[in-house]
Amino acid sequence: MIATIEGGITAPRGFRAAGVHCGIKASNRDLALVVSDSPASAVGLFTTNQAQAAPVTISRQHLDATGGIARAIVVNSGCANACTGHAGLTVAHMMAAETARAIDCVAEEVLVASTGVIGVQLDPRTVADGIIAAAEHLAADGHADAAEAIMTTDVAPKAYAVEVDGPSGRFRVGGMAKGAGMIEPNMATMLAFVTCDAQMSPALLRRAVVEACDDTFNAITVDGDSSTNDTLFALANGASGTEVDASSYDTLVEGLRAVCLPLAKMIVSGGEGATKLVEVRVTGARTVEEARRAARTIANSLLVKTAVHGGDPNWGRLLAAAGRAGVDFSLQGARVAIGPTVLFEDGRPFDERAGEAAEYLKSRDIRLTVDVGAGGQADATIWTCDLSAEYVRINGEYRT
Amino acid sequence: MIATIEGGITAPRGFRAAGVHCGIKASNRDLALVVSDSPASAVGLFTTNQAQAAPVTISRQHLDATGGIARAIVVNSGCANACTGHAGLTVAHMMAAETARAIDCVAEEVLVASTGVIGVQLDPRTVADGIIAAAEHLAADGHADAAEAIMTTDVAPKAYAVEVDGPSGRFRVGGMAKGAGMIEPNMATMLAFVTCDAQMSPALLRRAVVEACDDTFNAITVDGDSSTNDTLFALANGASGTEVDASSYDTLVEGLRAVCLPLAKMIVSGGEGATKLVEVRVTGARTVEEARRAARTIANSLLVKTAVHGGDPNWGRLLAAAGRAGVDFSLQGARVAIGPTVLFEDGRPFDERAGEAAEYLKSRDIRLTVDVGAGGQADATIWTCDLSAEYVRINGEYRT
Repeated sequence: MIATIEGGITAPRGFRAAGVHCGIKASNRDLALVVSDSPASAVGLFTTNQAQAAPVTISRQHLDATGGIARAIVVNSGCANACTGHAGLTVAHMMAAETARAIDCVAEEVLVASTGVIGVQLDPRTVADGIIAAAEHLAADGHADAAEAIMTTDVAPKAYAVEVDGPSGRFRVGGMAKGAGMIEPNMATMLAFVTCDAQMSPALLRRAVVEACDDTFNAITVDGDSSTNDTLFALANGASGTEVDASSYDTLVEGLRAVCLPLAKMIVSGGEGATKLVEVRVTGARTVEEARRAARTIANSLLVKTAVHGGDPNWGRLLAAAGRAGVDFSLQGARVAIGPTVLFEDGRPFDERAGEAAEYLKSRDIRLTVDVGAGGQADATIWTCDLSAEYVRINGEYRT
Repeated sequence: MIATIEGGITAPRGFRAAGVHCGIKASNRDLALVVSDSPASAVGLFTTNQAQAAPVTISRQHLDATGGIARAIVVNSGCANACTGHAGLTVAHMMAAETARAIDCVAEEVLVASTGVIGVQLDPRTVADGIIAAAEHLAADGHADAAEAIMTTDVAPKAYAVEVDGPSGRFRVGGMAKGAGMIEPNMATMLAFVTCDAQMSPALLRRAVVEACDDTFNAITVDGDSSTNDTLFALANGASGTEVDASSYDTLVEGLRAVCLPLAKMIVSGGEGATKLVEVRVTGARTVEEARRAARTIANSLLVKTAVHGGDPNWGRLLAAAGRAGVDFSLQGARVAIGPTVLFEDGRPFDERAGEAAEYLKSRDIRLTVDVGAGGQADATIWTCDLSAEYVRINGEYRT
């Protein structure tokens, strides 16, 4: 039993949060704190980009040092602290130390994340003041302020929480995220933070988080540009009294998924200039990996994204994208559908149905299905958004 | 000695061409013929897309059957004859047979190419009439009509020719191309045709063409969407009396490059909605393959392309793209320049030079340089265009 509840990142017991404005951005909240009242099992998943930002480097070191235990997450928006050299590392270090002082723990128990413009230095004094202010405002209902403080110019804050009733008892999962939508130039980062009040080891939490991310956060794409700062932190503090064991592991993964999937979809729906949420489903692949690769190629195709944006039932572009995805593919066995309308099957086109598909494309939620005709049983789903002229406008503006 | 000359695809001796309007498109020329007066060594390079169009299938079969000999190339625009099943194969067959009848050769000596909307059937009668008309108009100065007839809505015809004075004598190379710019929806195809009047075996021609394409046609990208129809045909008929041997092989490759590079750049400059030609140069890579992969990742990054379009000196996006390219990369050793302005070096940013870079980005020809810091000697160049709102508009319109 999984029920959606209010409360975002502070819905699980034993977590407090705050979000304040300290001046990194001209206006709006720009610094968030999430604190667990007791040491929590902690996991970090980071960008695979080799140009890693300073907070990514520091957070990795801290998780290594503690073996996966944390008390707090500190996040700033408005500056990515990426490509900032030694000065940037010093500030990221200081953010952890300052937070540790404020909540009385060791610096290694603090995880750090940043989002904003690349290559600009973060003013240490401004951030330190922000951390002190945020620590004073920590509250068990501070989730909304925190979700707001990690926004760059996302159109809306992204938060979700559930209560899970599993075989070993009840527990809650909460989360907040920040779009990969880069509503402003350079705001390329996807940040996601998940809290849970069940009890489990860092190793078990890691396994469950990796599994839950696989078909949620790792199954979305806005424009294929993974950032220097992408980070997901998950904390589990045991405050519910429910312990996760082998019998309730699947329930934990489901609970995490129940929070991660809505957050992931919010990120895509809120993509820069996006007007539609697009679900790309690939079937008939030899392996799940090939299904994912084909779905991702289709989802990242500019021609597919612009066609969806313009309501053009241009099904040939779906086949062309699948055909170049580098997976086992057979044109004779392939099948393409836009919504419920099949436009290619048994090696031949049904272009006369294009009008019906055009009608379907007027909706806000679009489902595209491609069978790659490899005769396999594997399938995968990737979520993306359409590509609009607004995306180009947003990302082409000079950063003044 | 390589000199640019007039005459496009018919500049080499012993070639005639024509371009007519037969009614596949509502107006404008839509069928081209290129004929060699004598059997020519012939090479075809085709799309790696597994969803291959009917003309690709037929042309492959013909080159296999003849062992690399051809008399003619027949091309239509306005319909890709892709994803058209058995009916499509029949029409592609017929196009070769009809051309063979008109110029008196066997069908296997005719190569076929198509470009246009995917999934729509090509009317056999219309095309047959076009072939008969084109054969009647074949002329030694027919290059301009032919170059026009392969356009979809490219902004301009793309043709180039050179005369090469090499160790074994003089010969000419001519060519024409059709943009991957997809000026109209679905017009994803890059078609390129190259003629040469030197004498050589099909095997030697293939080797030289592959080598010349490597850093010309294979070094450009508009949007990363390789089509179902991409084709390059090269014919060498020996009409100049110059024979290419081991001593003049390099001159042949240079001659081919001298035609392929301008055509490739014309394709990129003429990309849909493009306003700038962007040269992405990657240095310091371990291998040429890694240099190419990094350059291609940067060139295909939507964030890079929109920044260039908007004149935003957003150098962090170049580093972020290089960092996710899956090549050996070191942030400490990396270096980024926009034009002559270095914005990141020795592990630290020089963001204060952004204004200077913004000024440079106002030009039409843009050069971006990224050293990936892997300490290697390999480099590579990829050409692309910027991404404009016009691209989105063009590709989002319903195909009515």
